Amino acid sequence: MENTPIESLIQFLSRLPGLGPRSAARMVLFLLNKKQSHLEPLLDLMRQVDEQVVPCPICGNLDTQSPCHLCRDERRQKNIVCVVPQVADIWALERTRIYKGQYFVLGGLLSALDGIGPEDLKINSLVEKINKGGIEEVILALPLTVDGQTTLHYLAEILKQTPAKLSTLAHGVPVGGELDYLDEGTIQTAFKARRQI
Amino acid sequence: MENTPIESLIQFLSRLPGLGPRSAARMVLFLLNKKQSHLEPLLDLMRQVDEQVVPCPICGNLDTQSPCHLCRDERRQKNIVCVVPQVADIWALERTRIYKGQYFVLGGLLSALDGIGPEDLKINSLVEKINKGGIEEVILALPLTVDGQTTLHYLAEILKQTPAKLSTLAHGVPVGGELDYLDEGTIQTAFKARRQI
Repeated sequence: MENTPIESLIQFLSRLPGLGPRSAARMVLFLLNKKQSHLEPLLDLMRQVDEQVVPCPICGNLDTQSPCHLCRDERRQKNIVCVVPQVADIWALERTRIYKGQYFVLGGLLSALDGIGPEDLKINSLVEKINKGGIEEVILALPLTVDGQTTLHYLAEILKQTPAKLSTLAHGVPVGGELDYLDEGTIQTAFKARRQI
Repeated sequence: MENTPIESLIQFLSRLPGLGPRSAARMVLFLLNKKQSHLEPLLDLMRQVDEQVVPCPICGNLDTQSPCHLCRDERRQKNIVCVVPQVADIWALERTRIYKGQYFVLGGLLSALDGIGPEDLKINSLVEKINKGGIEEVILALPLTVDGQTTLHYLAEILKQTPAKLSTLAHGVPVGGELDYLDEGTIQTAFKARRQI
């Protein structure tokens, strides 16, 4: 195919997470075959999102309101903040409905390989926020990966100078996880963190 | 999450082929985190495609030109036409570069289950096109499914009244296919259509 807008759109879409050249082509054809019912409403929605969605100046969440609906919600606890790497992690935690406090999006994880240092993350504004007072607990909800644990230790070192209590998520056997199917790392972690019943 | 444009966009995307709610959310977050480098160029491309792409009045292909670049191409044979169900099938055949004739998009397959009858496909304009003369061979490139074969027999019945020669794609063992991994239907077809070497 020559370089038409169709081909450019397929190439662009195939570089997005979760799509390859074939699935991008299938999606574009689907949209082109249903211009009025699908392509145009999708364009409208994307335009709305592009125009209206801004990062929340308080927590870093993405929302059409600023501050975001979570920071505005008066029913949420103000004295506890959950630190997550990305906005997607807020959404994942919100789906569980277990947590009713504040959030703080770091904007990534420290990574020697990817050259991401403390100055690339919003660590300063996190420290500032906690030093302002009123926060009793900081939950570091970071993944159990090399980068996640590096960031956890780095943050713990800095934040232990603040009055807030620090905590992290429990690691162990996931719900529904059979030992036979789990990796050794998870089993070891769960074993070391075993608790009396 | 409440019903924001973000949520509507995720819901909309998750109904497209190849995406689910999780992958749609990941894609939207990716685009929102890279508004200027990704979301806005994508919007532009989609707008261009929406405005410029039209179905070819001759073959039914989708292109920014009308007639499409395949129908305009003077180097392509005019006396042979390949009938395919969808535009995607043209693209699949073009990737192989084996065929240098004309195309004709039926717009689907006959399907009793989905209630698609001959009047829903472009069978009349296909017959008209062939009756106009100048076409020596019609290749029915239809899939070896119930609907595909129903359509094939229906078309063959109608088209055998025209002067054009009819043909269909060969069915058999795919390239790289080991017998052990193939379904019985394919092996039976290949066995029946065995040829002397």
